[in-house]
Amino acid sequence: METKQHRRRGTGATERGTAAEPGAALGTRERIVRVTARLLQRQGYEGTGIKQIAREAGATLGSVYHFFPGGKQELAAEAIRHGDEEMADLLREGLGSAEDPAEAMVAVTALLAEGLRESDWLEGCPVTATALETLGGSPEIQRACARALANWQELVGAKLLACGFDEQDARELACTVISVLEGAELTSQVTRSDAPLRIAGRHLHRLVEAYRP
Amino acid sequence: METKQHRRRGTGATERGTAAEPGAALGTRERIVRVTARLLQRQGYEGTGIKQIAREAGATLGSVYHFFPGGKQELAAEAIRHGDEEMADLLREGLGSAEDPAEAMVAVTALLAEGLRESDWLEGCPVTATALETLGGSPEIQRACARALANWQELVGAKLLACGFDEQDARELACTVISVLEGAELTSQVTRSDAPLRIAGRHLHRLVEAYRP
Repeated sequence: METKQHRRRGTGATERGTAAEPGAALGTRERIVRVTARLLQRQGYEGTGIKQIAREAGATLGSVYHFFPGGKQELAAEAIRHGDEEMADLLREGLGSAEDPAEAMVAVTALLAEGLRESDWLEGCPVTATALETLGGSPEIQRACARALANWQELVGAKLLACGFDEQDARELACTVISVLEGAELTSQVTRSDAPLRIAGRHLHRLVEAYRP
Repeated sequence: METKQHRRRGTGATERGTAAEPGAALGTRERIVRVTARLLQRQGYEGTGIKQIAREAGATLGSVYHFFPGGKQELAAEAIRHGDEEMADLLREGLGSAEDPAEAMVAVTALLAEGLRESDWLEGCPVTATALETLGGSPEIQRACARALANWQELVGAKLLACGFDEQDARELACTVISVLEGAELTSQVTRSDAPLRIAGRHLHRLVEAYRP
């Protein structure tokens, strides 16, 4: 999953990067965000420390706090936005790979299964663990997680709308599609098998068929 | 959600309890397990420390290690088994509340939504956060999480089989039902709304209908 720079949300990176040293500063900030996103995905929020982030990003603690004066919460929220866009890219790829929306569901679950297998089942949804650990504790992170889910739902909903689905059906199906993907990813990770995702793909196919206009 | 003692899995509690002081020891051990289950559900594995567990269970650190010489991993695995049974009880209640399996899906999601709302959206699935945080790190916990998911799938599958569904359809639907519940719980928690679970209930109804023999 390659994240496309121009698709990244927010302008924080550019603004802060430019304030210091344009190229190099942006590089370091981006590296810190990517490392954080990967660590949150693999071990969650509580298990991830600023020191480990700095070490794995090849940055000093000082530069982490330079870019993220709000510390771990601010950094985690930015990393969630990064994960949001990575998943959005994958959804765009899967949804775009088949004209038919029911077929597209199968493609999306296949892409997710492929990514999971490649990471030895360790790199699943970029928001789930962090979302659950910080519920009620960090409004900033919770907002980023809610925005990610809404963003993904919107992509699925747009595909369905473009295929002529009723507006409410499209919105509700999109909500369930993302729930299914979240849950099936977790089940695949815990059981170290792509079967839950493959089965979910077939069922989403069937569900979308049932609402086809 | 009341957990029924006689339904708890494993005999560790009884054996170890009896070895020391029957009644009192069992009480303390059970309290430690319940407190741990609730903390894992609310804040995950990494954010939960043995000291907090001891404090909230009104137990000494010494007694926590007496009952769980394997420390936090052993205790977490036991707490996951406790959460497994709590969720299994809820599933039995929901699945048993309607003869029709499609209607039962709606009942299950309603029960989950009710529990979430009562806990101010904080007490969701008892295994998700811990499962994701410990993937690849603790085989003992991962086994307990996998067993929980399998246990829940079996309950849903048994309901479908009893209603005459094809065996493979029942097994696969059960897998997706649990994935949907996991994902919709997360979405409901992050958005602090029961809509994702209600919508998932209607979609599961439709999906089960589509496979009705």
